[in-house]
Amino acid sequence: AKIKPSHSKEMSYSNRGKTLEDDLNETNQYYLTNGIAVIHKKPTPIQIVDVHYPKRSAAIIKEAYFKQASTTDYNGVYKGKYIDFEAKETKSTASFPLKNFHDHQIKHMQAVTAQGGIAFVIMRFSITDTIYLMPAKELFVYWERMHAGGRKSITIQEVETTSTKIPLGFQPRIDYIKVIDLLIKENF
Amino acid sequence: AKIKPSHSKEMSYSNRGKTLEDDLNETNQYYLTNGIAVIHKKPTPIQIVDVHYPKRSAAIIKEAYFKQASTTDYNGVYKGKYIDFEAKETKSTASFPLKNFHDHQIKHMQAVTAQGGIAFVIMRFSITDTIYLMPAKELFVYWERMHAGGRKSITIQEVETTSTKIPLGFQPRIDYIKVIDLLIKENF
Ligand SMILES: [Mg+2]
Ligand SMILES: [Mg+2]
Repeated sequence: AKIKPSHSKEMSYSNRGKTLEDDLNETNQYYLTNGIAVIHKKPTPIQIVDVHYPKRSAAIIKEAYFKQASTTDYNGVYKGKYIDFEAKETKSTASFPLKNFHDHQIKHMQAVTAQGGIAFVIMRFSITDTIYLMPAKELFVYWERMHAGGRKSITIQEVETTSTKIPLGFQPRIDYIKVIDLLIKENF
Repeated sequence: AKIKPSHSKEMSYSNRGKTLEDDLNETNQYYLTNGIAVIHKKPTPIQIVDVHYPKRSAAIIKEAYFKQASTTDYNGVYKGKYIDFEAKETKSTASFPLKNFHDHQIKHMQAVTAQGGIAFVIMRFSITDTIYLMPAKELFVYWERMHAGGRKSITIQEVETTSTKIPLGFQPRIDYIKVIDLLIKENF
């Protein structure tokens, strides 16, 4: 009998109707449950304007706005080391647009890197259903190229050269800690 | 001329009208600006129920509720190491009530400790205006004592024995990284 690869066409990422965030949350839950790592998504920052306190029931927020995050999506600890990453998806197939990043996210990743933390991006090309881990120091090069007047995206060839592809699995879905292990061995 | 201590009665913590959170945020901002550490308060988790999307203006959250945090207040990186802490205040003078902690916060700190992260509590006794850093492993002892039927608080004598007092300063206000340095030397 032929063994069906776990990442077959019928079971593809897009078809599962899951977002990258869903899969990363499930992955982090798997890491937590199995004592592998403690990594959480940060709550979305909200600017609260008006709160009502009804008697005998919970406070209701009646007016609030989404604030732009000043840091990245996920952080936590793996073997004592600080882990920090941003997750981004694109529908583009030829390149990854840099407009997906905000200046303060880059600044945050630079500060983390300077402090000896492990910072990276998990990027998903949704059409081809491929996921890469790009170390932050590689992202900085393309960010600076853009600010020097260069292209506003990272070509798929550049992504393939500077990043590690993460195969999709069943459990955990996106086993990015395996890539981190490799990168720690190579001194990131 | 007599040198006025920065922590004199007239300038006391309570009189400044600042919360522990304000002072920790200013401290963390100082650490960030000076390249000492990258530590942020996590946003308050909110359950969003209803959002309106008016034309030509920002999305408005019309109904939302506060969720209980599943982790601690602050985390980040110092010299590559993962830092994680909870900040708590009490008006009690004789002891620190353990009801200030939630079970999932303790579980989170246990998972962080098991993963080699540096977890602790910054506790403020607001009446006497004193601030202590208690390593998480000390807190776990009192938590377990309570669950074994023991007292529901940590006496001030116990706090003094197991924790390090953090003197209030001008900049940074609550220099807890100095305590972390000491604890790292003593293998925490
Ligand atoms: Mg994101
Ligand atoms: Mg708190």
